[in-house]
Parts: sequence; structure tokens; C-alpha cells
Amino acid sequence: MVIVHVFIHVHEDSIHAFSDACRQNARSSVKEPGIARFDVIRQDDDPCRFVLVEVYRSEADTVQHKETQHYKRWRDAVQDMMAEPRYSIRYTNVFPDDSAW
Amino acid sequence: MVIVHVFIHVHEDSIHAFSDACRQNARSSVKEPGIARFDVIRQDDDPCRFVLVEVYRSEADTVQHKETQHYKRWRDAVQDMMAEPRYSIRYTNVFPDDSAW
Repeated sequence: MVIVHVFIHVHEDSIHAFSDACRQNARSSVKEPGIARFDVIRQDDDPCRFVLVEVYRSEADTVQHKETQHYKRWRDAVQDMMAEPRYSIRYTNVFPDDSAW
Repeated sequence: MVIVHVFIHVHEDSIHAFSDACRQNARSSVKEPGIARFDVIRQDDDPCRFVLVEVYRSEADTVQHKETQHYKRWRDAVQDMMAEPRYSIRYTNVFPDDSAW
């Protein structure tokens, strides 16, 4: 699996709008056949910090996701909510095996 | 949900043994009723770095997990494999809702 954790730091007055935009994007993203998971989580000790936990079946599926209308809508909607540029770290699954995602 | 990301940096010669120990622990952990997920992932650009993605149904379930034999076995097995102390960050789910984990 291609696992991408996207780290996002938003302005305090954007927490609610950012959460809503992420829920909308995630609801559509999990319907993409190449996406096994698209979780949105918020850091307990700093509610301005979020992580998108994205799990794709292949590298091509990460490219396909960025072509969708829901991704582009999210990207544009959250642009001014971020306190600093977002960044991502990529991982590969050790457990579970590919078949279990 | 109570979501815990545990960040672990292991010595290069421990990568294989650490992966095996984590798979064993994860296979038992996902059978705990209070655990919704227990993923083990490895960082692509630095294979000495791992994240345990643990999702619990409640705070009590995080305590219960540390009482299990499989957790204690893992903790003792990996103690000398770590290049620095592990640390964790706690999150709460924004998406999906509790019922979907």
C-alpha cells in the first residue's frame, strides 16, 4: 500500500471550517476504488494540527486522487486556512498485509 | 476514538527483528475488543523509522492494552532495538465518525 500522512497546521479561527471541508473531501475520497482509507484526525494537545491518513492501493491512485473534483475543491477551500505550508511523509505497510486494507 | 501514533526509530540492524515483533504484537492486538485498528507502517525515505497507528474505542482500552501479555512481550523484545526513546502523539477522529471504525 502507498500510505501518505499529510500534516496540516491551520489558523485557530479556521478549525471548524477546515474540519467541515475535510469531512466533505473524505466522504468522496473513500468512494475512489484506489483509496482504502482516508481518515482525518485532530491532535489532542493542539487542535490547530490535523493529519490526513491516506491509504492508496497504488502510486497511480495517488495521482488519480489529485485529478478529482472533490480534491480540487478541498485544495482551493483550505488554501487560506493554513498557518504554514502542509507537508507529507510516505510509508509502506508492515501490518496488516495488502489484502487486509 | 482515542487515536495514538507511536513514533519509533530503530537501529538499522534491528529493522527486520523489529518488524517481526510488531507483526506478532499487532496480530494479537487487533483481537482486543477495544482496539479498532493497530497498523504498523515504515517510513519510505528512512526505513529505520516506524509508526504504530493505534485506534482505541476508549481511554480504558488503552490501559487494558498495556496489561496484555502480547504488549509486554513486544515492549521487552524491542527495548534494545530502539535508537532513541519512542514517543507518541494523541488524536481524535474528525472523519470517519466513531461508528465507522
